[in-house]
Amino acid sequence: MTTTATNKQVTLKDYVSGFPKESDFDFTTTTVELKVPEGSNSVLVKNLYLSCDPYMRTRMSKPKPSTALAQAYNPGQPISGYGVSRVIESGHPDYQKGDLLWGIVGWEEYSVITPTPQVHFKIQHTDVPLSYYTGLLGMPGMTAYAGFYEVCSPKKGETVYVSAASGAVGQLVGQLAKMMGCYVVGSAGSKEKVDLLKTKFGFDDAFNYKEEPDLSAALKRCFPKGIDIYFENVGGKMLDAVLLNMNPHGRIAVCGMISQYNLENQEGVHNLSNIIYKRIRIQGFAVFDYYDKYSKFLEFVLPCIKEGKITYVEDVADGLEKGPEALVGLFHGKNVGKQVVVVARE
Amino acid sequence: MTTTATNKQVTLKDYVSGFPKESDFDFTTTTVELKVPEGSNSVLVKNLYLSCDPYMRTRMSKPKPSTALAQAYNPGQPISGYGVSRVIESGHPDYQKGDLLWGIVGWEEYSVITPTPQVHFKIQHTDVPLSYYTGLLGMPGMTAYAGFYEVCSPKKGETVYVSAASGAVGQLVGQLAKMMGCYVVGSAGSKEKVDLLKTKFGFDDAFNYKEEPDLSAALKRCFPKGIDIYFENVGGKMLDAVLLNMNPHGRIAVCGMISQYNLENQEGVHNLSNIIYKRIRIQGFAVFDYYDKYSKFLEFVLPCIKEGKITYVEDVADGLEKGPEALVGLFHGKNVGKQVVVVARE
Repeated sequence: MTTTATNKQVTLKDYVSGFPKESDFDFTTTTVELKVPEGSNSVLVKNLYLSCDPYMRTRMSKPKPSTALAQAYNPGQPISGYGVSRVIESGHPDYQKGDLLWGIVGWEEYSVITPTPQVHFKIQHTDVPLSYYTGLLGMPGMTAYAGFYEVCSPKKGETVYVSAASGAVGQLVGQLAKMMGCYVVGSAGSKEKVDLLKTKFGFDDAFNYKEEPDLSAALKRCFPKGIDIYFENVGGKMLDAVLLNMNPHGRIAVCGMISQYNLENQEGVHNLSNIIYKRIRIQGFAVFDYYDKYSKFLEFVLPCIKEGKITYVEDVADGLEKGPEALVGLFHGKNVGKQVVVVARE
Repeated sequence: MTTTATNKQVTLKDYVSGFPKESDFDFTTTTVELKVPEGSNSVLVKNLYLSCDPYMRTRMSKPKPSTALAQAYNPGQPISGYGVSRVIESGHPDYQKGDLLWGIVGWEEYSVITPTPQVHFKIQHTDVPLSYYTGLLGMPGMTAYAGFYEVCSPKKGETVYVSAASGAVGQLVGQLAKMMGCYVVGSAGSKEKVDLLKTKFGFDDAFNYKEEPDLSAALKRCFPKGIDIYFENVGGKMLDAVLLNMNPHGRIAVCGMISQYNLENQEGVHNLSNIIYKRIRIQGFAVFDYYDKYSKFLEFVLPCIKEGKITYVEDVADGLEKGPEALVGLFHGKNVGKQVVVVARE
């Protein structure tokens, strides 16, 4: 009986400045014991799918006191992120061999984790693709759900703008907004993505921000009556343009600012006085403050998927060795839909 | 019997760029009929006190579509603002000769107004200085009350930072926060104002922002455990420094951004990604959305004034001819306390 296995890992060479490059990452191979220590409550998992998420960029930078949402990665060590995994051995009373879970694991073939509520979730529903638990049914989906319903205070008939709209979070936000009877416009960075928004996700309109010399004019064209809700994923110049086009009492849910994560010096945002003139609410949020609503979310979203009311697009990279390329590509908008890395299909 | 009177007025010569100057204003003298037209519901008032408020700067600029909170002044015409006035003649059923009111009037000795709810308020309590209705008991007081209780979501023991803290709004916000059991720090632009904050208004600490080369370091010194609530009156660099020092789930009530009103190009704010990391809520608000709470506010604040629990400092300019100087001085921080212009003491 085999008691050890080789364990390929993706490590961060050193803290990253600017855009991450594939060469910022390395591969190592260690050996992992295929059992958990006697008396420990840890769980050995085999990682199946890994999730590429924009927030991971903030973990690659040298830690600063003011950016404490997620801990920085340790240079020389494997990076970590959300993934879907199968339990191989368990010392934890809530997990049995064979169980599936999603949550934070290492970027490696096998991880030893100590299951923690709000960080690890047992997968109960397996009649959907397992990879969905890195996106639509996992952290990004829950982010879209909490951000839209809990932060945006949406009402039927309102106008909703979603940036990075074809991404893991954006595509669901747009569909939730349409289900509520809102007018929904999304932006993305290629014709292919814009087409996806209009034809597959049912956005009322969409534009390619890279082809708009004047973002404010593009928003004015799409929202002649102004924007009631902005689901913010990008920051910087886009936020400035949005502020000019917001309606009185508009709401901006700040989910992310991917355009800023790779800049050493953040872009200045100049139109903040509109916050007063228009009595705008800007609310930053983090999904882990809302995980208590996760089972409610599943009750809502699983039937929607099965009935075809909610659509989901993934961009799948095959093999852990493709991980760095997939992760780096995220910050250049190379992915079309949710970026997933398949480690093992079992 | 006199049926007309001369009516001195302060007019705006032309739209203002940059800081307003006394020479941007002019004086004219017209004649006013000391009665209201037969059958009209207008009211002729004699203006006693006029209020200098930062938002008036936004009305001096050439109108832009995105800054629609208050209408631009008309060049060549008298400017207007909040004031306290005595009714001389009334065609309006709710107002009698001799009544006092506060609300929007012209910068002139006599105004003919059409009383409008949310714009004009009858003064019922005259056992306090009438000029207080331009400040503590008027728009700025109501702004502080609504901004603090309705927008900041304050809790006992929280840390509160107020900029422009010795101004009409700031001085009350600080005192309300102290009454709630918060730790309160204010900033202002002179030693005299800083002393006022500490000795008269009971702030726990205060600093002169003009003498701090590093605003973020000043805030860190005053708030070693971070800021829970920021009452924003100034914008720009101060907001950037505050964002670095906010606590998770902090709230920023955006009342004004006086540092930006005189700039043709607004300063860029660079630290907005803290909104995500710290799940900050930034809420712009305007007092006129809260005037339905005005009588509740008076019920609260009048006893506080009489019992000495709330203190109030005014900076009084004597005579309408001093109006432009007083108004212009506001944008250089020359006023110590609420800037009032006395038109007539009766």
